[in-house]
Amino acid sequence: MTIRNLEHAVDPKSVAVFGASVRQGSVGRIIMENIAAGGFEGDVWPVNPKYREIDGRRCYATADQLPAAPELAVIATPPRTVPGIIGELGRKGTRTAVVISAGLSRENGLRQAMLDAAKPYLFRVIGPNTVGLIVPHANLNASFAHMNPKPGVLALLSQSGAIATSLIDWAADKEIGFSHVVSLGDMADVDVGDYLDLLAGDTRTRAILLYLESIPNPRKFMSAARAAARLKPVIAVKTGRHAAGAKAATTHTGALSGSDKVVDAALGRAGILRVRGLGELFDAAETVARFPKLERSRVGIVTNGGGAGVLAVDRLADLRAELAELSQETIERLDKALPANWSRANPVDIIGDAPPERYGAAVAAVADDSETDALLVMNCPTGLASPAEAARAVARLAKDGMINGKPVLTCWLGEMTAREGRRILQKAGVASFETPAAAAAAVSYLSDWSRAQKALMRVPSSLGEDIRGHSATVRDMLRNAASKGRRMLTEPEAKAVIKAYGIPVPETIVVRTGDEAE
Amino acid sequence: MTIRNLEHAVDPKSVAVFGASVRQGSVGRIIMENIAAGGFEGDVWPVNPKYREIDGRRCYATADQLPAAPELAVIATPPRTVPGIIGELGRKGTRTAVVISAGLSRENGLRQAMLDAAKPYLFRVIGPNTVGLIVPHANLNASFAHMNPKPGVLALLSQSGAIATSLIDWAADKEIGFSHVVSLGDMADVDVGDYLDLLAGDTRTRAILLYLESIPNPRKFMSAARAAARLKPVIAVKTGRHAAGAKAATTHTGALSGSDKVVDAALGRAGILRVRGLGELFDAAETVARFPKLERSRVGIVTNGGGAGVLAVDRLADLRAELAELSQETIERLDKALPANWSRANPVDIIGDAPPERYGAAVAAVADDSETDALLVMNCPTGLASPAEAARAVARLAKDGMINGKPVLTCWLGEMTAREGRRILQKAGVASFETPAAAAAAVSYLSDWSRAQKALMRVPSSLGEDIRGHSATVRDMLRNAASKGRRMLTEPEAKAVIKAYGIPVPETIVVRTGDEAE
Repeated sequence: MTIRNLEHAVDPKSVAVFGASVRQGSVGRIIMENIAAGGFEGDVWPVNPKYREIDGRRCYATADQLPAAPELAVIATPPRTVPGIIGELGRKGTRTAVVISAGLSRENGLRQAMLDAAKPYLFRVIGPNTVGLIVPHANLNASFAHMNPKPGVLALLSQSGAIATSLIDWAADKEIGFSHVVSLGDMADVDVGDYLDLLAGDTRTRAILLYLESIPNPRKFMSAARAAARLKPVIAVKTGRHAAGAKAATTHTGALSGSDKVVDAALGRAGILRVRGLGELFDAAETVARFPKLERSRVGIVTNGGGAGVLAVDRLADLRAELAELSQETIERLDKALPANWSRANPVDIIGDAPPERYGAAVAAVADDSETDALLVMNCPTGLASPAEAARAVARLAKDGMINGKPVLTCWLGEMTAREGRRILQKAGVASFETPAAAAAAVSYLSDWSRAQKALMRVPSSLGEDIRGHSATVRDMLRNAASKGRRMLTEPEAKAVIKAYGIPVPETIVVRTGDEAE
Repeated sequence: MTIRNLEHAVDPKSVAVFGASVRQGSVGRIIMENIAAGGFEGDVWPVNPKYREIDGRRCYATADQLPAAPELAVIATPPRTVPGIIGELGRKGTRTAVVISAGLSRENGLRQAMLDAAKPYLFRVIGPNTVGLIVPHANLNASFAHMNPKPGVLALLSQSGAIATSLIDWAADKEIGFSHVVSLGDMADVDVGDYLDLLAGDTRTRAILLYLESIPNPRKFMSAARAAARLKPVIAVKTGRHAAGAKAATTHTGALSGSDKVVDAALGRAGILRVRGLGELFDAAETVARFPKLERSRVGIVTNGGGAGVLAVDRLADLRAELAELSQETIERLDKALPANWSRANPVDIIGDAPPERYGAAVAAVADDSETDALLVMNCPTGLASPAEAARAVARLAKDGMINGKPVLTCWLGEMTAREGRRILQKAGVASFETPAAAAAAVSYLSDWSRAQKALMRVPSSLGEDIRGHSATVRDMLRNAASKGRRMLTEPEAKAVIKAYGIPVPETIVVRTGDEAE
């Protein structure tokens, strides 16, 4: 595993585009337009024997004719031409290419031919079958994506090009920027593990988002993910969670997805925060990247509507997040500040007519309790008090989105009336969500993240080599079963195998008659 | 169970408001303002001994002084005065009231006193402890909600006032209107079962939304829900799904929530579609109310991005929705219409460069397949084809949101670019969702709904009275266990009870020695 030569994909001084074109709607034209739109300041060399000039730039017929070795090559030519181009580029001195072209498969041998051409030069290939890569801070958009993302602190690595472009589109609307967007494609050479290694050390990247349909080199991936996750949040959507989805992923990328429970355990052990949907990628990134790491995340809830509290608690339980037990001191402090019919427990229901002062008093008391690690503050619109004023009361207490150094997440229910409250909170740097479900999910990201970090610290980096069981016993057992044509062990056999590794199991004795049992 | 006298809450000719006030921010003032804002055209009589006039209307000191019996009374006075007011109104001839006042509890006896005062007249009480009720078609807003919902086809019954106001607020933003909004409060008299009965026959109501924290009279509820669900979709959020949520619900409304598995089974048997969150209430209502009932709901997916298809399939599996197996004819038809590298299975991946014609051909083929009952059409933005044109191609095929009489759900991923496509689809009456997760959820509402309807048809309306087991045997068994201070049956006892009801169980013989076993 190495990230050698991959640095040329980060901030290249020159880019050659093989298959550059002027034909409307062609990939080669869109790449040229994107490079121009990205504002790339280095040299841009179109390569295509059909043209002498493209967009006012001189167009070259072959790699040999280029004035120098381009630091990065973008290749969007017919698949059979790709191995040859890689070879020419390697001879010329180029060491990194993004292969946009699809159709270089194991079956037609072109994938291997490409890798063979790259090998002598330690030439790194991103792709094939990718939308390309975008490095906004370097003004580099070497892709045929439909739009140009703005610079930011999130890196996106996606096995699917269409998911990458969809996420760029979503992010643009939310004004979220990226440090890197990489459509990894078929990962014939450069894979998700390599890029994780690269991005772990990238100071512009504060969190890494992954969209994966398979995990091609699990060992390499695990090691890279563990290293990256110690330094910054790594958040993943891994599809193929069900057999049906896995089957669909197979027809899509031709990759095997593996059992989801194994994947889940592996991602957890790698310190990765796994989420289910695309929207949750950004939500989770924005939540965990916003706050310092938490040891625990027992949440205290303040709400003016009991129903909203019940909904949040239900969803928190779905998501295995931890509810705080308020201390007796806090209960007594709230007894003094709240009307007699308050809930006297977490969630703290401060009643529908709660004025801003009551919000302030309740939130401060819950934040002061040493039994809470994070706060969820909720508001339901009523005719009796202003949601905007309630928001101001909470915003006043917050510093860097926290109160007493504890993360504050808020949920102003409704829409027409809630919008102003949410704006006030967001402007004050307080995280704001639209539904109890979304707010509870955000709380769960915090707790999943502290769990993931804890797992990362606890587990040694590899157990594989240290296990010294009675391997002879185990081998005999397995051979015996195999010799009888069995693919499963009997219960006593399985127990013996477990025992051979020093794991205690209940004693089993096989009896054949009633007398023996006696 | 009766809905007698509840009809006065639907379209009353006159309303008296007890506790009407001019004090800024008071409940009595907000109710008066809401009645005016609602445009109520009948008589409005404020009642409060402190005032002689409110908002230019004559104010009465007591019920006795009113010019006639108001058809509906709204009561927002101190709790101890409520039973007396109900008695006075009963004598005068009123038969229905909404009691906004909180603090009439079992403990202080006021709840029972109120019911006793109502009893001689079959006087129906909605509440106490409610935000009120709103009937937009009758221009009646007898509540202290913060805004006035517009008329529509959805009825909302909510055990929590704050959730009712939150949902009104959300709905306003989405331009969704209501036929009824009822904050049921403590349900001392009128409960969710009564209102379900009323709304089942209400021609303005096309779907009924429920927010429940408990089910107070389960038998009555089940019977009413079954009757209503045969006629129109009934969609419920029932909280307290987890022990923690149930505990929070107990502190909120003082109601016991019961085991969630029992609740889930009961809701299913009642033909109710259960959803988890508030947002899903509207999404589910809009989805199931939009289409005719489906026998089955095997979904065929068409997408230009494999990843989007994989995400949808994963979520569909989470939600137990059924994926269609395309027929051989359809595969062959698609072979002719699509590029060679299409997925050749469901999801039908028509590749990122798919022009509108390819969308049209693929969607038509999948809609023609007798193995599909519903369609999910997805689009990921790429630089190669226009999402808006793809939307137009799908919209052209649709009639009343369906193709070939099959529901079409769409998901245009992204935001900046997707918005126009979504608008085109919505304008053509095609359901459109923002994420694969939301679209998959909508598909699952269709399949849950067909499942719920099937359950409704299969189960006889009541088994309770028909069971003729060997009740003597069972009684003996239970008494024997109870006499030994046990609260659980042994396995052989439990099997005997089940057998006594004619349900076959594996034979069990208790042996005490090895010989006996032989």
